[in-house]
Amino acid sequence: MLTKLSIDITQAEDVIAAATRRATEMGVPQNIAIVDDAGHLVAFRRMDGAKFFSIDIAITKAFAAAGARKATKDIGPATQPGAPAFGAQALLNGRFTTLPGGIPLVVNGAVIGAVGVSSGSVGEDQTVAEAAADYFLQTYAH
Amino acid sequence: MLTKLSIDITQAEDVIAAATRRATEMGVPQNIAIVDDAGHLVAFRRMDGAKFFSIDIAITKAFAAAGARKATKDIGPATQPGAPAFGAQALLNGRFTTLPGGIPLVVNGAVIGAVGVSSGSVGEDQTVAEAAADYFLQTYAH
Amino acid sequence: MLTKLSIDITQAEDVIAAATRRATEMGVPQNIAIVDDAGHLVAFRRMDGAKFFSIDIAITKAFAAAGARKATKDIGPATQPGAPAFGAQALLNGRFTTLPGGIPLVVNGAVIGAVGVSSGSVGEDQTVAEAAADYFLQTYAH
Amino acid sequence: MLTKLSIDITQAEDVIAAATRRATEMGVPQNIAIVDDAGHLVAFRRMDGAKFFSIDIAITKAFAAAGARKATKDIGPATQPGAPAFGAQALLNGRFTTLPGGIPLVVNGAVIGAVGVSSGSVGEDQTVAEAAADYFLQTYAH
Repeated sequence: MLTKLSIDITQAEDVIAAATRRATEMGVPQNIAIVDDAGHLVAFRRMDGAKFFSIDIAITKAFAAAGARKATKDIGPATQPGAPAFGAQALLNGRFTTLPGGIPLVVNGAVIGAVGVSSGSVGEDQTVAEAAADYFLQTYAH
Repeated sequence: MLTKLSIDITQAEDVIAAATRRATEMGVPQNIAIVDDAGHLVAFRRMDGAKFFSIDIAITKAFAAAGARKATKDIGPATQPGAPAFGAQALLNGRFTTLPGGIPLVVNGAVIGAVGVSSGSVGEDQTVAEAAADYFLQTYAH
Repeated sequence: MLTKLSIDITQAEDVIAAATRRATEMGVPQNIAIVDDAGHLVAFRRMDGAKFFSIDIAITKAFAAAGARKATKDIGPATQPGAPAFGAQALLNGRFTTLPGGIPLVVNGAVIGAVGVSSGSVGEDQTVAEAAADYFLQTYAH
Repeated sequence: MLTKLSIDITQAEDVIAAATRRATEMGVPQNIAIVDDAGHLVAFRRMDGAKFFSIDIAITKAFAAAGARKATKDIGPATQPGAPAFGAQALLNGRFTTLPGGIPLVVNGAVIGAVGVSSGSVGEDQTVAEAAADYFLQTYAH
């Protein structure tokens, strides 16, 4: 039998709050999603003014980060033309995303969930996702 | 130009909190989704222990209630065998749901969003959705 | 080689105008779609206030009426429990609809397109679709 | 509560007429779609002779322009090989398009809808979309 660790709703909303604080400082409203260790949605917040277009993208970034067990931006290089995973974005009905803004949440080496952020530029999304992941690390993973 | 009213994130999370209180009283963890007037997700909470199977169902119930401008349970009768809308559940790639648990949030006759609840029995889901809609009505729509 | 007759854009928008007049008389804003003989969209109008939920349903009704070469409401009986086409609504990724409100547009026995109407009750949708089809018959098919 | 502005049907068909005039001058029949601020279809015209293949592409271009709040052609560069959003076209079940021909319609900084044009070359599509957006700007946004 396996025992799995997974993010709970209190932690998830706490991480969303941390992401929101960073997005507010930046003046960029964001869609923020948290998925669990199985890639399933736990919590979601669309800050007022965030793009409807990016709702599913935020969720997809979190899904891909939890699933690949790495930041979505770090999946990207292997999918470039000439690289072995070229074209991988077409997998999983488009849920294999390499857009920056998805980061796994890790405790003792185990991915217990992930955060996905989308509505700004990819750089802004990544910055907010990093703030969320850093908060998680400091609060729940030491 | 049209002017539309839509639920904001503060209201959405406030309604989710009301739904959570009712679900907690009942001892049934729930997935709770809020969509805006256009059917787009605004906020989502999966209470610890709620079924992953019901995540998308909760979101779909909210979508259908906002879209049909009526409680999902009230769409159902017209889709029964012999009734004119029989088979309508196959529409919209399965987003035309008549499962109880989706209720529009209305201000002065305008649907500004909807709540969807799923993880318990359909009766439990409906009870929690009603608690959420009642809370919204008393808090924001008078 | 086959020669096909198909509705043109002038006729399509003329039929939409007729449907709009009827819907306006009834006080029920509607989504109104016209497809051609091949089931492809030619023209679409969402009257202000019509449900976003019913956009694709209107298009689907027109598609099904053109495809089945009969009014969608007349496809329904054969799909009832116990009837031979039971469950047919699941075909074609949900585009096999039997909801009232789709009617073929016919010239000399040939289906050259269809109208689909959705946003009101199924009775209201059917009434507007009939007004559209009647207008077409009187204007273009004698 | 949020207040949103959205294009109405009169404006939408007016913009389609402007696009049609430009397409007619160019001798290239087009599919022309208008979506609202939430990405939902408001009006659509397929000029006689426009490709059936491009119906959904026109609608998708409008959806993406409204959603991303920028012209679809301006989303493209970040998705090129080596750029951070490479592969983004696989997102949203293919509704994340970067094909030129989609432009948001903006009033006082708010995206109230978008136009999408498809059936010609991408250059022709873009030219017609620009004519539509320019018309909107001069007529409704000053």
